[in-house]
Amino acid sequence: MTTAVLSNAKMKTFEEMESAVRSYSRGWPTIFEKAKGYKLWDIDEKEYIDFFAGAGALNYGHNNDMMQEKMIDYIRNDGLIHSLDMGTTPRKEFLERFKEVILTPRKLDYKVMFPGPTGTNTVESALKIARKVTGRDTVISFTNAFHGMTIGSLSVTANSFKRHGAGIPLHHTVSMPFDDYVEDQDEIAYIEKFLEDNGSGVALPAAIILETVQGEGGMNAARLEWLKKIDNMCKRWDILLIVDDVQAGCGRTGTFFSFEPAGINPDIVCLSKSIGGIGLPMAITLIKPEYDKWGPGEHNGTFRGNNLAFIAAREALTNWETDDFSKAIGQKAGILNDAIEAIIKKYPELNGKARGRGLMQGLAIDTYGLAGEICAEAFERGLIVETSGPNDEVIKFLPPLIIDEKGLNKGLKILDESIKHVLAQ
Amino acid sequence: MTTAVLSNAKMKTFEEMESAVRSYSRGWPTIFEKAKGYKLWDIDEKEYIDFFAGAGALNYGHNNDMMQEKMIDYIRNDGLIHSLDMGTTPRKEFLERFKEVILTPRKLDYKVMFPGPTGTNTVESALKIARKVTGRDTVISFTNAFHGMTIGSLSVTANSFKRHGAGIPLHHTVSMPFDDYVEDQDEIAYIEKFLEDNGSGVALPAAIILETVQGEGGMNAARLEWLKKIDNMCKRWDILLIVDDVQAGCGRTGTFFSFEPAGINPDIVCLSKSIGGIGLPMAITLIKPEYDKWGPGEHNGTFRGNNLAFIAAREALTNWETDDFSKAIGQKAGILNDAIEAIIKKYPELNGKARGRGLMQGLAIDTYGLAGEICAEAFERGLIVETSGPNDEVIKFLPPLIIDEKGLNKGLKILDESIKHVLAQ
Amino acid sequence: MTTAVLSNAKMKTFEEMESAVRSYSRGWPTIFEKAKGYKLWDIDEKEYIDFFAGAGALNYGHNNDMMQEKMIDYIRNDGLIHSLDMGTTPRKEFLERFKEVILTPRKLDYKVMFPGPTGTNTVESALKIARKVTGRDTVISFTNAFHGMTIGSLSVTANSFKRHGAGIPLHHTVSMPFDDYVEDQDEIAYIEKFLEDNGSGVALPAAIILETVQGEGGMNAARLEWLKKIDNMCKRWDILLIVDDVQAGCGRTGTFFSFEPAGINPDIVCLSKSIGGIGLPMAITLIKPEYDKWGPGEHNGTFRGNNLAFIAAREALTNWETDDFSKAIGQKAGILNDAIEAIIKKYPELNGKARGRGLMQGLAIDTYGLAGEICAEAFERGLIVETSGPNDEVIKFLPPLIIDEKGLNKGLKILDESIKHVLAQ
Amino acid sequence: MTTAVLSNAKMKTFEEMESAVRSYSRGWPTIFEKAKGYKLWDIDEKEYIDFFAGAGALNYGHNNDMMQEKMIDYIRNDGLIHSLDMGTTPRKEFLERFKEVILTPRKLDYKVMFPGPTGTNTVESALKIARKVTGRDTVISFTNAFHGMTIGSLSVTANSFKRHGAGIPLHHTVSMPFDDYVEDQDEIAYIEKFLEDNGSGVALPAAIILETVQGEGGMNAARLEWLKKIDNMCKRWDILLIVDDVQAGCGRTGTFFSFEPAGINPDIVCLSKSIGGIGLPMAITLIKPEYDKWGPGEHNGTFRGNNLAFIAAREALTNWETDDFSKAIGQKAGILNDAIEAIIKKYPELNGKARGRGLMQGLAIDTYGLAGEICAEAFERGLIVETSGPNDEVIKFLPPLIIDEKGLNKGLKILDESIKHVLAQ
Repeated sequence: MTTAVLSNAKMKTFEEMESAVRSYSRGWPTIFEKAKGYKLWDIDEKEYIDFFAGAGALNYGHNNDMMQEKMIDYIRNDGLIHSLDMGTTPRKEFLERFKEVILTPRKLDYKVMFPGPTGTNTVESALKIARKVTGRDTVISFTNAFHGMTIGSLSVTANSFKRHGAGIPLHHTVSMPFDDYVEDQDEIAYIEKFLEDNGSGVALPAAIILETVQGEGGMNAARLEWLKKIDNMCKRWDILLIVDDVQAGCGRTGTFFSFEPAGINPDIVCLSKSIGGIGLPMAITLIKPEYDKWGPGEHNGTFRGNNLAFIAAREALTNWETDDFSKAIGQKAGILNDAIEAIIKKYPELNGKARGRGLMQGLAIDTYGLAGEICAEAFERGLIVETSGPNDEVIKFLPPLIIDEKGLNKGLKILDESIKHVLAQ
Repeated sequence: MTTAVLSNAKMKTFEEMESAVRSYSRGWPTIFEKAKGYKLWDIDEKEYIDFFAGAGALNYGHNNDMMQEKMIDYIRNDGLIHSLDMGTTPRKEFLERFKEVILTPRKLDYKVMFPGPTGTNTVESALKIARKVTGRDTVISFTNAFHGMTIGSLSVTANSFKRHGAGIPLHHTVSMPFDDYVEDQDEIAYIEKFLEDNGSGVALPAAIILETVQGEGGMNAARLEWLKKIDNMCKRWDILLIVDDVQAGCGRTGTFFSFEPAGINPDIVCLSKSIGGIGLPMAITLIKPEYDKWGPGEHNGTFRGNNLAFIAAREALTNWETDDFSKAIGQKAGILNDAIEAIIKKYPELNGKARGRGLMQGLAIDTYGLAGEICAEAFERGLIVETSGPNDEVIKFLPPLIIDEKGLNKGLKILDESIKHVLAQ
Repeated sequence: MTTAVLSNAKMKTFEEMESAVRSYSRGWPTIFEKAKGYKLWDIDEKEYIDFFAGAGALNYGHNNDMMQEKMIDYIRNDGLIHSLDMGTTPRKEFLERFKEVILTPRKLDYKVMFPGPTGTNTVESALKIARKVTGRDTVISFTNAFHGMTIGSLSVTANSFKRHGAGIPLHHTVSMPFDDYVEDQDEIAYIEKFLEDNGSGVALPAAIILETVQGEGGMNAARLEWLKKIDNMCKRWDILLIVDDVQAGCGRTGTFFSFEPAGINPDIVCLSKSIGGIGLPMAITLIKPEYDKWGPGEHNGTFRGNNLAFIAAREALTNWETDDFSKAIGQKAGILNDAIEAIIKKYPELNGKARGRGLMQGLAIDTYGLAGEICAEAFERGLIVETSGPNDEVIKFLPPLIIDEKGLNKGLKILDESIKHVLAQ
Repeated sequence: MTTAVLSNAKMKTFEEMESAVRSYSRGWPTIFEKAKGYKLWDIDEKEYIDFFAGAGALNYGHNNDMMQEKMIDYIRNDGLIHSLDMGTTPRKEFLERFKEVILTPRKLDYKVMFPGPTGTNTVESALKIARKVTGRDTVISFTNAFHGMTIGSLSVTANSFKRHGAGIPLHHTVSMPFDDYVEDQDEIAYIEKFLEDNGSGVALPAAIILETVQGEGGMNAARLEWLKKIDNMCKRWDILLIVDDVQAGCGRTGTFFSFEPAGINPDIVCLSKSIGGIGLPMAITLIKPEYDKWGPGEHNGTFRGNNLAFIAAREALTNWETDDFSKAIGQKAGILNDAIEAIIKKYPELNGKARGRGLMQGLAIDTYGLAGEICAEAFERGLIVETSGPNDEVIKFLPPLIIDEKGLNKGLKILDESIKHVLAQ
């Protein structure tokens, strides 16, 4: 209670001046001052464990020392901050490093497009080029997909509240069932039938766009064999496969690209969020050379040359020089998964279900509103964690990948106490 | 010739790794290393005068000392870099400063929305809220408008090459003639007739969206009385007026908002580019309180909390504490205009026409391709300037607002020499 | 008053059983029993002069003796009534006769498509084939156009009440100003500018569709030179010209096709209404052979083989064997025009304006609702005449072409008396 | 061979003058002269058994004597042929008779709309009113649905060839799997999940439109319990249920409305084809009074008052005064079904499957092209029967309902011989 009153005083400027659209400052009503690694502190010096990682944009944690140093150096030397797609050294070095550390070792051959510095920008560019090269207009997306909030990306986003916000009907897309969408049904059989039947009412699409793990949609992880089947389907029908790895990529599931363990090779890959290393706006679209049929400037965007982001992005790639980073993620993913399963057992009244893959996991809770109450309680106790899913029914665990076991366990302890507290009420 | 060969060697990484969509690195084939104020230097230490200002994102010039200092301090103190719409001190201080220095003195009452850090994001959010609050789907935009490259913004963008890149038909919008679009015709009479006639085939729109000066469209400045008439029309028909001030705002035409001298009060204003002060991605949407009917999170975006941008943005507002900045822009605009008129007289073979307003001016040239050749020659001679217009027929002058007379004259001299050289060939 | 009460009793079945969508039985609340030539009689044996001609479907008048005989013979001989697009003798003979009497003498070369028996069907088929052969999606239509009520045709129909009835936004069309739409403006200059400017926001269309005289839109007759200019524009830009001659064709304006005096040769022509001779449902789409790129059955419709209509249609073509019919229409059009001008002079309070061409004329009246009152009074006095225009502000004269001078004058006398009566109130 | 050559001579006019879109005159290359009951004769006096019934428009057979007499009487008496929605005696008498014989005995309460005389017109009107009264834009339709060829109806039609003919993307509709669409899957579970999940990507629809038996789609009969489940779903989610009974209605499946045995009560019913009794163009839309929210003339059509059709339609209703007609259909449906099953057994190489319900049955044949060859052979032998299904893989049996056992058996014998002949080649 006391906290809430103080909060309101602190939050006055946001409440009075910001649009009603603001959301996080409602659920976490404080002013954050500092952050390092997996911790944040607010202006009252209260410490928080971060199980949110800037909605997946801070896989490498807050304020990495090396990234900070390189950014400061660059600023001190009057390096170009903003450069559209003009040539600059940070852009050049990011490209070269990305090829060396990421593409070449994985035997991937992609052209790199800088479509503007946000997730929705890379998705919009992916949809455009897929439609252009195929000459088809329909794109298949999936139930509970989230790809962004601009009209092109929103058209392949499934959430009804978000879609309704468009104010217009959203066209040129078809929503198909994601893996394990309907109990005891074979979603692949459905999709295949719609593609192969001339009388299905669904035109041959330009592309299929998917997240391998649906973050906003409720931490739904597609099985690797399901991904493989979708990939085969795309090849059989000459459909482009777009993997939106904005949230699941950059190591979130354990490998740099989330699709690596499925052994597939998408035609287009969307990256944003953690690609910028330290949380600065950046996005890239990877396009197989044979589909890179853009005219110069056919898609553009003022902020597609964010050099501070390129510097941090290049630094972040250092993590991928060896397997160590990847292995550590896997180990921590195991700890997280064990903890979720333990909670499910310990609190049968949650009727909980474990979701997700890697350090992108969730705890789905049946009772309406309960997940939100637990997150609110966790915030009071010093843990930043949010919900996702169509009814905000999933507690979404997205700690920075660099979190150590101590931090992970501390966060999980707060979670456990929060659940206990909420259930006791 | 020699330069071109050298360029190619320098540009190898971009040519090999980047998508064919890249554009500026084709026209200006070098690697830029440093920038300060209105000057840039490439890795060969060649100096360039900047008549481009990051496509309007660098109104305050490159690497302002005070902004640099404050950003470095913040980084050194481990301030949150990335915070979505969580409360942070830079966000709070920007909001308060913006109210104090910009809104209150102009007697403007707007809610501030952070829609994601790019121009297209603010436009998409403006279109959404206008459609939501009116319950109508059509938006009227103008010939030669440019509002962005994601599907919603692209639907109100007029350029056929850009529109074609969508790969899908663009809906829910109607293109009307901008001021002075068709010789000897009254565009206002035309638009009014379409609005008032039940048989016009154009539905009552949710909104009219416009740029007061069309940058990408060819530096077309609407007359102030035309803006006033459009504003009256909106009021009479209960249509929301959206001013996209992404490029023309933040002082570009002499006042903070480009619409101030027209004495109008738009329902929604889109700002981006120079709002971020130093060229970091940032955008805001200003919405009259009565139209701020968003649900929490109904529009969002990962990078809507770019704290380094907030810090530079707050610092940039200092320029607006007195009238001095505005007056200086006016004075330099006069010099620029005189120079353009002088060139038109001096080179009658250009059949040139002066365009624009404030430090957002253009020189339209009839002969196909000539404007581009002049800009290419200017680049060789150390001036960064680009073309705009549906056929790239306009040389577009967009110097940083902080340029001094010496810089302005130096740039104009290079321009003159470039024209002379090109015409001589 | 007495009549109204009786009417209600008569109209009980329609009022109770029919949908609220019914319209003519509201304005003319009686039950019609018989009709011949230009006269109708209701069940109370009241006689009416027909200035309506079944909304233009009865150019040859009611119940032509020869058509009746041939239809009865066919029925008596068990001829196929309904045959889709199977071969039948009436279909064959109509085709041959149409070529001989209509196409060949006018040096026109068209393939004949039977798209289903209604006006909206021929328009839908025209739009489809234009889009298919050009590979473009946009169609330009005009302010106050009426082309039909199914979604494709409604998309090129301008009336806001009708469009709103769609319940969905209508796409892939652009509304341009018809001839003389905005006072003192040059509509052709507008349209040309939109076509030639790469930055107009209007894509190169598949087709331009127009009525030479807009019946539902208010009897607006395009000038012949305007039609010529549109035709030239289509040729210059490789756009298909579709003339919707559903109402203005079949002699309504004096020539078989309404566009003949303009000396143009449309790529596609839509005919329906009076093509069926006696008022039976029938429609054809005429397509230049080079654009007839349909696959078999790519457009179809159950009732595209209405043999009774083919029989009456063939018989109707007899009127076009010589020039006499055409000349007689011209003569009567002159009488009608003189009468309208006389009324305008006689009743200056109407502030009337003469509209239209041939036997498709109108009297536009400023005062809201007045045109409707005059038509209601005319009905009471034995004249069937309706309004048109976006605000029902035009009295629409559409007598059967076979009307004689006596009938025309009798109808005009009732009109004059009705105006006098209404103005006296 | 000889026949084909002769045919070509006969078909010259159609081949030269008609559009390439013509279809039936290709498959049945002759000129039909006479028809009575279930028989047709061509100009060479060859007799054909009719298993086609004018694509379902001739349920009551060709040229019913009573209908002929009443039509001739009406013509002789100069009755109004064409009357839009003005009051006429045939319209009144049809309405009263329809209520008395069809609606009242079935305890159905519908307003009757005359939307224009074709199937696509009634579907377009149904979609419009459903969208208007719900304020929603999406309509759910089914795989292999056929609802018409104008853009609104085509948007809910599934066939890819037909859809592609639109030349534009078709919007505001979602295709869901029909009963038994995917082997071993539960289509109802799938649809329900899409409706109940806020994250499904499918908006709450205005309506679900379906055929109880899909004629063009391959004679797929939905199970009655499936229809019941869809109906329940509509009620639960406040979605309007539209039954398109254009082909399956008017007794085709044994009851007047095809949905009667399912015990459901649709909100809107579309009727056309056989409603006109003798094959004249006619259509009606039945709307529950609470949804009849049309404005006068909000949907219209010139030929919505086809009085000859009303006369035949009224006469046709006589068949429904007792149960006899319905029982006879059931009996003949049994004979037809037995015959199909016998053929499947007799010719295992067909790998045949029986489809359909009532006198709307089909024989699905695996081998590509075989069904078409059998129908071509049957034509040579004097049987008119066509194919349907997405790949024309189903022989479609649609005899007039008034066929007698002798006729049915004669037709089935020709079919058997045709199959034998084709398989022998």
